[in-house]
Amino acid sequence: MTVIETPAWEQRAAQKRAARDSLVSKWQPGPMPALRPDETYVKDFPQRSGLLTDEQLTITETPPSQLLSHLARGDWSAERVTRAFIARATIAHYLTNPLAEVLFDRAVARAQELDQILATTGAPLGPLHGLPISLKDVLNVSDTDTTLGFVARIGQVPAQEDRLVTQLHHAGAVLYCKTNVPQTLMSGECVNFVFGRTATPHNTRLTAGGSSGGEGALIALGGSPLGIGSDIAGSIRTPANFNGIFGLCPSAGRLPAHSAANADGHMTIQGVAGPLSRSVDGLEVYTRALLGLRPWEWDFSSIRLPWREEEYCAGRGARHPLCFAVVPHDGVVRPNPPIRRAMHLVKHALVAAGHQVIDLDPWDGQELMDAAAPILFASGGAEVKALLRVLDEPLIDEVAPLDAKPPLSVAQYRAAAVKVKMLREKYLDLWQATAASTATGLPVDAVILPSGGTVAPPHGKMEYFTYEAISNVLDWTCATIPVSTVDPVLDVRTEGLFEPMSEYDRRNWDSYTPEKYKDAPVCLQVMGRRFEEEKVLGLLQTVNRALGRDELYMA
Amino acid sequence: MTVIETPAWEQRAAQKRAARDSLVSKWQPGPMPALRPDETYVKDFPQRSGLLTDEQLTITETPPSQLLSHLARGDWSAERVTRAFIARATIAHYLTNPLAEVLFDRAVARAQELDQILATTGAPLGPLHGLPISLKDVLNVSDTDTTLGFVARIGQVPAQEDRLVTQLHHAGAVLYCKTNVPQTLMSGECVNFVFGRTATPHNTRLTAGGSSGGEGALIALGGSPLGIGSDIAGSIRTPANFNGIFGLCPSAGRLPAHSAANADGHMTIQGVAGPLSRSVDGLEVYTRALLGLRPWEWDFSSIRLPWREEEYCAGRGARHPLCFAVVPHDGVVRPNPPIRRAMHLVKHALVAAGHQVIDLDPWDGQELMDAAAPILFASGGAEVKALLRVLDEPLIDEVAPLDAKPPLSVAQYRAAAVKVKMLREKYLDLWQATAASTATGLPVDAVILPSGGTVAPPHGKMEYFTYEAISNVLDWTCATIPVSTVDPVLDVRTEGLFEPMSEYDRRNWDSYTPEKYKDAPVCLQVMGRRFEEEKVLGLLQTVNRALGRDELYMA
Repeated sequence: MTVIETPAWEQRAAQKRAARDSLVSKWQPGPMPALRPDETYVKDFPQRSGLLTDEQLTITETPPSQLLSHLARGDWSAERVTRAFIARATIAHYLTNPLAEVLFDRAVARAQELDQILATTGAPLGPLHGLPISLKDVLNVSDTDTTLGFVARIGQVPAQEDRLVTQLHHAGAVLYCKTNVPQTLMSGECVNFVFGRTATPHNTRLTAGGSSGGEGALIALGGSPLGIGSDIAGSIRTPANFNGIFGLCPSAGRLPAHSAANADGHMTIQGVAGPLSRSVDGLEVYTRALLGLRPWEWDFSSIRLPWREEEYCAGRGARHPLCFAVVPHDGVVRPNPPIRRAMHLVKHALVAAGHQVIDLDPWDGQELMDAAAPILFASGGAEVKALLRVLDEPLIDEVAPLDAKPPLSVAQYRAAAVKVKMLREKYLDLWQATAASTATGLPVDAVILPSGGTVAPPHGKMEYFTYEAISNVLDWTCATIPVSTVDPVLDVRTEGLFEPMSEYDRRNWDSYTPEKYKDAPVCLQVMGRRFEEEKVLGLLQTVNRALGRDELYMA
Repeated sequence: MTVIETPAWEQRAAQKRAARDSLVSKWQPGPMPALRPDETYVKDFPQRSGLLTDEQLTITETPPSQLLSHLARGDWSAERVTRAFIARATIAHYLTNPLAEVLFDRAVARAQELDQILATTGAPLGPLHGLPISLKDVLNVSDTDTTLGFVARIGQVPAQEDRLVTQLHHAGAVLYCKTNVPQTLMSGECVNFVFGRTATPHNTRLTAGGSSGGEGALIALGGSPLGIGSDIAGSIRTPANFNGIFGLCPSAGRLPAHSAANADGHMTIQGVAGPLSRSVDGLEVYTRALLGLRPWEWDFSSIRLPWREEEYCAGRGARHPLCFAVVPHDGVVRPNPPIRRAMHLVKHALVAAGHQVIDLDPWDGQELMDAAAPILFASGGAEVKALLRVLDEPLIDEVAPLDAKPPLSVAQYRAAAVKVKMLREKYLDLWQATAASTATGLPVDAVILPSGGTVAPPHGKMEYFTYEAISNVLDWTCATIPVSTVDPVLDVRTEGLFEPMSEYDRRNWDSYTPEKYKDAPVCLQVMGRRFEEEKVLGLLQTVNRALGRDELYMA
């Protein structure tokens, strides 16, 4: 007789998952209706489900700056706002599986405290008073796991809360959940053996992206007004892209990083933390509030650079028409038809709004990744392997091979850092040289870059992330803006000769059909230079306006 | 019969040195009078030698901002100013050997061009119009060696001029010489087999310090109004200290670095370039001019942070009394009597001027150096060894052992970077915690730190550089300010029990006699937090004022 025992890692993961699901179900506003098997588009499910009250829908459809006004005035109590987002988060979780840690009990208690403070003092506690904020499961929260998607990290409560988290708490934010990530964090998808797989609500056959994938899906479904992700090679912008929302990846040092980034020793291409939201307004609320908290006084990695309103106004084109440069592709993978269409759409909208748009030559994605890969993979995945060994947990398939690159010596590592520096010099020069092509004689205000070769791919099929990694290599500010969705009629395969630029390019083209990506969001990247966060936020508003949206537009 | 041939490296070095000396002698204002063997104090030699005209003395004793005014108005032509500093530089060279590359011919030609521009356009070319600036021999200048003190680098003209150099040139600076450094740059002294040894003019038996030692001696003797040095572990502040002048080491990224720093791959503790001058005015001229040139548009490593006048005013104590914290020692080596006296002097002067001064506990120099050393020496000196092998050139004695630390793996290197980060967090907290001890309830405005355990040591005796490296480890802004000189009467050995804190401490104390350090300058370090350059410059003016000096005071 053969007894097949469930491995320890599977048992532990199942326990953790069951505990999470039981907490979530306790807060569900009602029984979840079954979905049809072909019901892959669930983005509008929370609105049409009948599970939320009108007030809950109104609250969860209100942009963050207005939520904060209502909260500060006491129009809506923090508890009502928190309960509304919790209710909607449970529906989002049912649809796409974005949640990792469920902190609803303590969130409601905190919201009640905040209501008490407002009632007693007549003033909000801080700039984020009563605003629910979701946190990617890389941020350390007191008395809460940070699994990073590893079974071995279950129950390993971090010794200290991240300073960013504590400061958000002190500023009045209501921290009510942590969201899913891929095991290892080194993946453009969102799946692990602890919490499972997260899908995009635009098409649940497609990945929510990674590594901040839980944030992407939760926010897109209105289950969070504002989330904090992290990014070292696209991890904020890939899920923003795949879920059709806004995301901001700051230059390293502009906004406080999560402590994991401080504890990783990466100094050339650095991990950063940044906001995701359905609106530019959400990104602004976060950036203004955090810089107002003078992070350089409590986060050693943050530089002494307060919010600059004049840069923000410059990005909004307050006084002058702006000039945008468009990068058509990265020389390795051409964007698929829906992305090319979005680029045309934005280009024409900007020109129609009176701005100048110039076309740049393709950038050299190969050169950029050849420089970045040795840095990113220099240790040969030693830490990941050690974590997996603890319980013989397998590695997920959706990750780049850990030992694709041999471990480097320090001399080689430094030589690799020099290559990255030289590329930073090259691209700064390239940006400044655009002055020769603009009507103003000044360098362009922004670069618009495809968000990738493809929109959100089916689960397990994400393989190319150069477009998302470029801004990290250059340490430039970069934001994601949703533009359109895949349309089976408009985005058909073009016929005629296709000359692949690379094997990636051939696969990306061969596998393209608009049906496969039905309803998938199409986003672009808006890039500024180093420490141009305010300007990029203003530029997003300029693009919004050109697309006929107002400044509180919510995706 | 034995023929002893001069080794090739010695021959090449002798040729190079002879070429330099022949160029220098061409520009000497007259035959140099012999010095008495006991004439070790030569700081005032240029004034008393009779070799310079009254006008040359007036020009070379004028602070940089006033020189620029005179130049812009055409009171003094750029050529006259340049020739005055060249004449005085040749005297400085005779006395202390600070020069490496002699660019006097092209400097005078450039000065004539600048005079022509002013005559034709009526306006100065740029913010540094006509100001002679000396450059440490780490900066690449077109058609000129950058030996770094290695014989093997003679004749290896760099492919490209440093952008910083080109920009200084375009801003109107007259670049007329490069100055001596220690072979390897990894030394607190200034000696190599190419150009020889540089002494401090306060006592030529003592070292000029390193690695920007040529700058220190040249400027102290009035042979340069403003020089650019570089610093990764004290290399601007050690020579400023040993030569009794001012020096500013900015946080990495605030001011453009030399290209060698960009090409070295150090990303945790980074090399920076900064000014040395006889006056705070000189440091200000450089910092204001460079930031006015918007370095973030041409130097990828410079952050987008223009000059902030309000921070400068805050440092000057424009509106409020300031609060200074004094660190007595680093727990490893106690400063010798003259340094302790300087600390008391400054402390009492600040209190008398109405400022608050609080005493901090000693900092932990051992911990700081234990964190820094693995980073600084991680490659085991591989590049130095390769350069020495070319011609079998010996290593100088005045350098830290190259393989004191074994080469690290990337994983170890990253772990070492994390330790440095955690210290940055610890010291930021420590700074902020001073709020509990100040009258204002705000953290202190500055930290005052000894400049080292000893003042300028005799040639070959420099061994301890923790005090100078602390600000690099923390990436804080740090400046050197001259306070006094060693006085054989006031700075006698104190009797009584001496409990050494370390072997360094015992040696530093046992070897101390005031006679050995006769006339040596005594300086202190004034430290701000990261990117507080303007504030630190203002703070230097506050200390100047407390010491009874005006803001154009020249050491």
